Amino acid sequence: MTFATLAEFEAALSAAIVPDEAAIAAARTRQGQLTKPPGSLGRLEEIAVFFAGWQRRARPNIARGRVVVFAGNHGVVAHGVSAFPAAVTAQMVANFERGGAAINALAQAAGLELKVVALDLDRPTADFTVASAMTETECLAALSAGAESVEAGLDLLVVGEMGIGNTTAAAALCARTLGGDGAVWVGPGTGVDDAGIARKVAAVDRAIACHADAPMTAFETLRRVGGREISAIAGAVLRARELRVPVLLDGVICCAAVAPLAAAAPASIGHCLAGHCSAEPGHRRLLAALGLEPILHLDMRLGEASGAAVAANIIRSALAAHDGMATFAEAGVSGAE
Amino acid sequence: MTFATLAEFEAALSAAIVPDEAAIAAARTRQGQLTKPPGSLGRLEEIAVFFAGWQRRARPNIARGRVVVFAGNHGVVAHGVSAFPAAVTAQMVANFERGGAAINALAQAAGLELKVVALDLDRPTADFTVASAMTETECLAALSAGAESVEAGLDLLVVGEMGIGNTTAAAALCARTLGGDGAVWVGPGTGVDDAGIARKVAAVDRAIACHADAPMTAFETLRRVGGREISAIAGAVLRARELRVPVLLDGVICCAAVAPLAAAAPASIGHCLAGHCSAEPGHRRLLAALGLEPILHLDMRLGEASGAAVAANIIRSALAAHDGMATFAEAGVSGAE
Repeated sequence: MTFATLAEFEAALSAAIVPDEAAIAAARTRQGQLTKPPGSLGRLEEIAVFFAGWQRRARPNIARGRVVVFAGNHGVVAHGVSAFPAAVTAQMVANFERGGAAINALAQAAGLELKVVALDLDRPTADFTVASAMTETECLAALSAGAESVEAGLDLLVVGEMGIGNTTAAAALCARTLGGDGAVWVGPGTGVDDAGIARKVAAVDRAIACHADAPMTAFETLRRVGGREISAIAGAVLRARELRVPVLLDGVICCAAVAPLAAAAPASIGHCLAGHCSAEPGHRRLLAALGLEPILHLDMRLGEASGAAVAANIIRSALAAHDGMATFAEAGVSGAE
Repeated sequence: MTFATLAEFEAALSAAIVPDEAAIAAARTRQGQLTKPPGSLGRLEEIAVFFAGWQRRARPNIARGRVVVFAGNHGVVAHGVSAFPAAVTAQMVANFERGGAAINALAQAAGLELKVVALDLDRPTADFTVASAMTETECLAALSAGAESVEAGLDLLVVGEMGIGNTTAAAALCARTLGGDGAVWVGPGTGVDDAGIARKVAAVDRAIACHADAPMTAFETLRRVGGREISAIAGAVLRARELRVPVLLDGVICCAAVAPLAAAAPASIGHCLAGHCSAEPGHRRLLAALGLEPILHLDMRLGEASGAAVAANIIRSALAAHDGMATFAEAGVSGAE
């Protein structure tokens, strides 16, 4: 188990791990020599330099990229916070395993391997409006399951999730970490009506009140108002950083999962990019709070890592241009006058 | 020659060619049955339905997609409107042919074939601040060269351009077609300084005044203040529509090339999507005027079809999800309660 103790989690959170400055400088120099006006590839140039730093090489690539979808169930569904029954979590995991879900098609289209990690689906978290979602042992197990889904040799990690009820947990994580009440952070998720949104807001407000006196640490926030798949995302992100694997975050739930990490140690998500800004209203505010500029704006709101998997194609394009283009000298092209 | 006469061009412009409503309806029905909350793939769903209509099949795909980069030279460069010498147009065409440019890497990354059409690079258009850029014969030849770059059997056409000086032509096209003076439409292009921008604004304003009394037709606008590569884009777009090939437009120059078509016959660009919104300031305004919602916002401003080639990956993702996903019935997943 990667996070057998709270101390191991805290150590990973505060570890001093930074991108390679020499690789960043070499990548920047190369961008300035390629046959295009300086800066004209916009965000693609920044992405190439970012990957150079984390992959520690001037010409990064993605030979091996992995999508991991974590799945968990939530006691808070008892409050009627989702348009879908909780059984859908396990049904969708089966759909992932048979290859029929959006993420199967999107991971394949982006040339990424797909791993699905179902976390105790038959044991939902406790209802966090009245108790902690998980015990310490359960939360450490979920963090560890996340960490164990990442391995050395990956060039990119794309994280996503499936869990009926988990946009309510995400809103609670945001409210507890960043302030604001349920009304600030709750949205329709997979598509609840106004009455459903009101139930979500009430659940978040009750959760925040219930846990108001608990320590404001990343671990306590994940444990009390998060979920197994959410903690696994946090664990995977921390492990990826140890291994210098750049991470592409999916939507509001993935970003909410790392918000407690970022609040405790901003550098702990320095290797993360936001794949997209979803249609869920709180996501834009959350991205801004995390200092993340999303790569795509396609009004997606499915989860499953779907938006980030699409964004992986943009990473591939950025790295292809960075690696494949000729320099002005190689091509005999005149520079600016 | 596809557009041997002005009458043939006018006929293509006003031809009644529409997407297939039955394919659109079938694609919409399929989207509603796939294992995801309705609408949760956002723009990807719209793209799949759009391609279904133009490809006239419920499950569209891109077996064969082509990028065409048109290159031309511009007499207006005599006014110091570019940061780069005019010789760069031919140098970059050689770079395309040797495989060293951004579009080579980006087309390959998106699985698209690349065709480069250089149009009389040793014969720049006339200086459009004092004369028509092209004769009628020259403009028809450029329109035809564009049309001839498209063929039946393509599933996607991505258009782009290379032409030192052509952001000035694009601004003139916008000003003449949509109103507003040079200051409204001119931007830094590949990177001129403030004095260069002032020269571009002055050139556009002189061009608009010079041609103010000429007929406001699409042909006269393309011929008088456009350019060979710009007219070729217009010709390719019209021919693609005849062949029901969906088109992905690149940046401000491609959008300016079709603006005169859209002004004359809005349906003539109904098969076009905007690949991205570039960093060139006038592009956002132009996209809004054309009613096009760009797929990407990556601050790219290179041209060469680079932004649209990156966007082609989003099309592929959209079609992969549409085609590859299981339905609720196939997967045994419960719908919304």
